[in-house]
Amino acid sequence: MAVRFTIDACDGSARLGRLQTPHGVAPTPIFMPVGTRATVKGVTPDQLRSAGAQIILGNTYHLALRPRDEIIRDLGGLHRFMAWDGPILTDSGGYQVFSLSGLRRVSDEGVVFRSHVDGQRLELTPERAVQIQENLGSDIAMCLDECPTTEASPEILRDAVRRSILWARRCRDAHRRTDQALFGIVQGGLDLDLRRHCAEDLAAFDFPGYALGGFSVGESPDQMHQALPDCAPMLPANKPRYLMGVGRPEDILAAVAAGIDMFDCVLPTRNGRNASAFTMTGSLRLRNARHRGDPTPLEADCPCYTCRNFSRAYLHHLFQVDEMLGPTLLSIHNIAFYLRLTAEIRAAILEKQFDNYRASFLSKQQFDRSRKS
Amino acid sequence: MAVRFTIDACDGSARLGRLQTPHGVAPTPIFMPVGTRATVKGVTPDQLRSAGAQIILGNTYHLALRPRDEIIRDLGGLHRFMAWDGPILTDSGGYQVFSLSGLRRVSDEGVVFRSHVDGQRLELTPERAVQIQENLGSDIAMCLDECPTTEASPEILRDAVRRSILWARRCRDAHRRTDQALFGIVQGGLDLDLRRHCAEDLAAFDFPGYALGGFSVGESPDQMHQALPDCAPMLPANKPRYLMGVGRPEDILAAVAAGIDMFDCVLPTRNGRNASAFTMTGSLRLRNARHRGDPTPLEADCPCYTCRNFSRAYLHHLFQVDEMLGPTLLSIHNIAFYLRLTAEIRAAILEKQFDNYRASFLSKQQFDRSRKS
Repeated sequence: MAVRFTIDACDGSARLGRLQTPHGVAPTPIFMPVGTRATVKGVTPDQLRSAGAQIILGNTYHLALRPRDEIIRDLGGLHRFMAWDGPILTDSGGYQVFSLSGLRRVSDEGVVFRSHVDGQRLELTPERAVQIQENLGSDIAMCLDECPTTEASPEILRDAVRRSILWARRCRDAHRRTDQALFGIVQGGLDLDLRRHCAEDLAAFDFPGYALGGFSVGESPDQMHQALPDCAPMLPANKPRYLMGVGRPEDILAAVAAGIDMFDCVLPTRNGRNASAFTMTGSLRLRNARHRGDPTPLEADCPCYTCRNFSRAYLHHLFQVDEMLGPTLLSIHNIAFYLRLTAEIRAAILEKQFDNYRASFLSKQQFDRSRKS
Repeated sequence: MAVRFTIDACDGSARLGRLQTPHGVAPTPIFMPVGTRATVKGVTPDQLRSAGAQIILGNTYHLALRPRDEIIRDLGGLHRFMAWDGPILTDSGGYQVFSLSGLRRVSDEGVVFRSHVDGQRLELTPERAVQIQENLGSDIAMCLDECPTTEASPEILRDAVRRSILWARRCRDAHRRTDQALFGIVQGGLDLDLRRHCAEDLAAFDFPGYALGGFSVGESPDQMHQALPDCAPMLPANKPRYLMGVGRPEDILAAVAAGIDMFDCVLPTRNGRNASAFTMTGSLRLRNARHRGDPTPLEADCPCYTCRNFSRAYLHHLFQVDEMLGPTLLSIHNIAFYLRLTAEIRAAILEKQFDNYRASFLSKQQFDRSRKS
């Protein structure tokens, strides 16, 4: 078994656990910084590690296009290529094919699409998705799924679920690496019956972990918050549950309350590049002139490299003059923030105080939002 | 005395020394990475330190415009602002006013110019140049000088030298900080008599250090290499000698041979951002397709973070997909290269082997240039 999942404590539906992988153990609930193209944007592996990252994500679609998965395989795999020796999860590429590539044709066989890089005609099948991820050598691979658009009709949604189940079986049959776990992905949009049907069929394949897909795509945060308490329990209780592409701190808190264990999202790095910092009391826009002479760090009690060394005034200056150190320092802080958030969540679950922690976090954010931004 | 300079060994005209400053000792000959806008582009102070940096440079002109020197003063000075606790040298702003700003009028009083940022009309006088640098709190400040263009007539050149001497006196008279050394700058272009006159007049002011200005501006490398053996000895032998804005490795070697102790240049970071790596056997263009599958580091024996962790294939990939980690990792390597070069130069001087070292370095570069690039 490539991964082993242990649940150590519960608080309501929230779970405290450990995810053991060939490249180390990650505590759960955990946030996974996104390293799309074999790099978490602007941040070195050393900086990532010292910001508290334990497991990171790589993107199958991007890496298959450039530099190509065979190149990475020949260089010793993704861990070595990007010099990250901790666990890595790779997505299946399905989401990117459906959101980034041009002109695609989906059939039960797979999806034919044009590369967003050079327009080349390519095909992604369940077997190829598994092959790419085996070439990358991630600790956790994901099944290829079909991600219908938000406006999909019930018929299209049902067909996408049928196809995702079909593809999951083919991924399982194609998967060979014993040092890599393959997770299933439950689709179905906001149709709970469809989600349940998908979850039940996939459960029969006994994947070592399960994800909820489609919630970062079309559904509104409110719809997601409403659906999660129904959807999370559809996934096997003794397996890690991963909510793909989510999200804001409040989304993560809602998902943990529903029983989700794993998260990934580009927000910490994307917002960091855009001069926006997460803090426990709300977000800060560093381009704002009120930071010009401010000698205080982003957060007084944050142990990250950025907060230990630099003032808001300095960060404001870096963004004012477009220096690349600004995005780097803010990305470091934001990643550290997300990992501090999940660490605090774990501590709260252990102390059976998760609901209080969540309420307290949200009230502080609320207060600050009106006061500052 | 804010700085103390000791010469420990000589080899021909080359000198091995130590420059003691309020923020620590730097061995000489030394290369100073350039932190124009209170940041060495793309590199954190931690990364800078571990690349071997001992003393860095900040730019008076840029920092006076943004965020403004008073802001930095109020935040505790430049060291604290940018979180660099080692020595800092600031230039006077003169070179930037003459090369970056629009529409300027020079008189004996000072230079009136338009900010290249917002077109604001500003004035830089010797007194203001000193004030800015005292506000920044650098360990070493530079006198304001006039930097004539390459095409300047002999008359204009003579007048610029006259004015630079006048301004040096006013800088000295205005300078108050006892924890900051003020260096004089010898101008005069390729007119050796003018250089000598300037050097002699400035020597009378007994500055704790002297620079050669104007060699990074108009003169060709060949002209500079020819002039250095005459110009360097014009500067007092017992004071540190600084060749401003220079240069390529071969320029540094030529200057050390002439008796220069300090260097600064944007090449390591600028080339790093442009995917060009310095190595002991020549430069490497990382965008070149031949690096695509290359598992070796930039330099097998380089101890920098980049070489210890990443392959040429990975760096090639980062530049192919325009990831900001590429410029950062290559800047780290290039800075480490320049500091390794000056460390090797110091070792060679100590062993009275500097000429051999220089010849050997140049022959290796020659060899590689024909073979690889």
